[in-house]
Amino acid sequence: MSEKLKPAARVSGRRQDVWTIINEAAAASPKQPIINMGQGFFGYNPPGFILNAATEALHRVECNQYSPTRGRPRLLQALSDAYSPHWGRTLDPQTEITVTTGANEGPYRPAGMLSAFMAFVEPGDEVIVFEPFFDQYISNIEMPGGKIVYVPMHPPKDGASKTVSAGEWAIDFDELERAITPRTKMLVLNTPHNPIGKVFSREELQKIADLCLKHKIIILSDEVYDRLFYTPFTRIATLSPEVEQITLTVGSAGKNFYATGWRVGWLIGPPALLQYVSAAHTRICYSSPSPLQEACAIGFEQAAAQDFWNQCIADMQAKMARFNAIWDELGVPYSVPEGGYFVMVNLAKVRLPRDYPFPPHVAERPRDFKLAWFLIQELGVAAIPPSEFYTDARATTVEDYLRFAVCKEDAVLEDAKERLRGLTAFLSG
Amino acid sequence: MSEKLKPAARVSGRRQDVWTIINEAAAASPKQPIINMGQGFFGYNPPGFILNAATEALHRVECNQYSPTRGRPRLLQALSDAYSPHWGRTLDPQTEITVTTGANEGPYRPAGMLSAFMAFVEPGDEVIVFEPFFDQYISNIEMPGGKIVYVPMHPPKDGASKTVSAGEWAIDFDELERAITPRTKMLVLNTPHNPIGKVFSREELQKIADLCLKHKIIILSDEVYDRLFYTPFTRIATLSPEVEQITLTVGSAGKNFYATGWRVGWLIGPPALLQYVSAAHTRICYSSPSPLQEACAIGFEQAAAQDFWNQCIADMQAKMARFNAIWDELGVPYSVPEGGYFVMVNLAKVRLPRDYPFPPHVAERPRDFKLAWFLIQELGVAAIPPSEFYTDARATTVEDYLRFAVCKEDAVLEDAKERLRGLTAFLSG
Repeated sequence: MSEKLKPAARVSGRRQDVWTIINEAAAASPKQPIINMGQGFFGYNPPGFILNAATEALHRVECNQYSPTRGRPRLLQALSDAYSPHWGRTLDPQTEITVTTGANEGPYRPAGMLSAFMAFVEPGDEVIVFEPFFDQYISNIEMPGGKIVYVPMHPPKDGASKTVSAGEWAIDFDELERAITPRTKMLVLNTPHNPIGKVFSREELQKIADLCLKHKIIILSDEVYDRLFYTPFTRIATLSPEVEQITLTVGSAGKNFYATGWRVGWLIGPPALLQYVSAAHTRICYSSPSPLQEACAIGFEQAAAQDFWNQCIADMQAKMARFNAIWDELGVPYSVPEGGYFVMVNLAKVRLPRDYPFPPHVAERPRDFKLAWFLIQELGVAAIPPSEFYTDARATTVEDYLRFAVCKEDAVLEDAKERLRGLTAFLSG
Repeated sequence: MSEKLKPAARVSGRRQDVWTIINEAAAASPKQPIINMGQGFFGYNPPGFILNAATEALHRVECNQYSPTRGRPRLLQALSDAYSPHWGRTLDPQTEITVTTGANEGPYRPAGMLSAFMAFVEPGDEVIVFEPFFDQYISNIEMPGGKIVYVPMHPPKDGASKTVSAGEWAIDFDELERAITPRTKMLVLNTPHNPIGKVFSREELQKIADLCLKHKIIILSDEVYDRLFYTPFTRIATLSPEVEQITLTVGSAGKNFYATGWRVGWLIGPPALLQYVSAAHTRICYSSPSPLQEACAIGFEQAAAQDFWNQCIADMQAKMARFNAIWDELGVPYSVPEGGYFVMVNLAKVRLPRDYPFPPHVAERPRDFKLAWFLIQELGVAAIPPSEFYTDARATTVEDYLRFAVCKEDAVLEDAKERLRGLTAFLSG
């Protein structure tokens, strides 16, 4: 190619990402069809009342045309109605909520979060991100020229030998405070956490909030799994009016309504901050799909009457218990999720055959990539190696773990368990 | 707000945009309900076969979950099948087409185009944009640090006195060549053109292409109105294999299928360029809404059998003729569109009352903003002042024009015409 036609540095020569590697591994596996517990998409449809709402919206003229960049008024109102009880006061749909295109997750990018970074990060500003991080945060922070400062979440000390609560993954708060500099502009929080499954406790959130208040740092709280918690869940914005003034909360209809392909998300925050997020979003991603916004509005309007939120929790907890039974059976430890639909399993006990033919791009990565490749090839079950969610310096922290998504049909989970029994032959003492 | 919490320069302190001004004017008008011929959204639904396809897609599990970032395979194949005949060879759905979130237009931003700019523009690179430009190009070029170099399209000399073809808006090719520098990286083309309604002739396109080949400039051809042309329409990528190698073509399902709120677009281009656009798109806007992608795939599959593309042209031409009859009746000249659904009307003959109470943010803008405000307040018809699509230096070029969108129900067009008869009282000789 002519030198003149060359691409910008920002898109040239990047390492193959985990999603591409796992998809290629799945395609190359002899165990077809693969059971895909890698990506966090649902293996079943949104509930009927949501699908009916979408169908209805598709037949209304205005629902097929542009929506206001800040979101359809009906959805903004529905979000206000749905979230005001959690905030303990009425959220103004005009100034405290904005609808975004998608929120986050998967191999896909968080436009809502990108908008927040674009709104506040100047080149050289620092953003604190906990490891493991959701990988898409990174390019989103780098796009406006931000510098990422990583702070680790430490795995449970005995995670390789026994099953413990995901809540035991811990932040060292001294370490966090040392990471703060005069250039620290934002801190990214994710609770319930992907991939860990941790729900941050009120005490942990208060410590984070106190540091952010002290140093005037904007909190960007990714709460896209906010309807899936199995232990008390606190929204950091609700700790106090002062914390609320520095907090932007991100939500996702894809996660809430089992429709990750709908690309409807939102941010909630104080007008003083949110106005700039809206301005940035308008310039990045315009409006999100109108008929699906309308369907989400109706979804929020009807969810309580349908007892949908309680059903969500009950259903996902049952799936977690159903699937994790295989690890108990095999004597393989895992972190019991406090929220979300991912489980981190510690496969230190799996002995990989010494001369196993890993392709070079897998062989050069930490052990979890090899574990993932091995499970796909030998058992036909795909999971995600979480070292992708760490910087190279700390990648080995989770080299014995794999992340499994349990948001799949029960029959699929049973099929996966049957296949995973094949691990027995490779387990050490 | 604390200095530490202040927004990035890129989102603070921007002038009110035309969409906000017009929407506020509409809300403030005594003539409710306003007939909105401003924004280019359709006043009617997508055809039944498309809506049925969307409804069907909503009930299939995989259509509600994430799609591959490059687009659903069925849509990529359908686009290949639909566009290969125009290219005169088979387009590879894997390497020559990528699906984007939205394409462009309205008060909303072109993710497909942003991806192209992000893929190739380094800080300081120059991008040539013709005036009038679609306003959202600008922030999209500025985001990766690009510098915009404007080249005017000159209005017909006698545009104030007589109705002429929109094709008479002309580029001065010497002026274009003088705008090229060693830093010129890309040139943005739009045909059929918004707001002009011009369809660039094969000869004009060849001259542009020759310059771009000579100077190794990437052509980004915004062809979102590609199914609406009333004169022969040439796609610049199809001029020659050499031109194709430097051209990225942008399309939009929202425009093609009367569903501007669906946010499904695509780019077609040579693999050597397109791979970087895909990489950039993945990092900006993830995947576009799955059920709507599926519906668009089915739409393309069935459009020919339904004779939909011919019907589109016939229907829109009929709307153009129906609406423009009012200008003929009033003796007000306009540019007869060669494509698209906008008409530029020259209202030099309208005498605005000397002491009319324009609000300050309108009074300070060129005359077309006053004309737009006046029509909204006095007649209840909203149109868009096109000086917004010019740099300040050339804004007066179109200060007598307003842009009307005719993609509305026939009854609405008739209602608008009846109201516009009220202009008679304000027309000079």
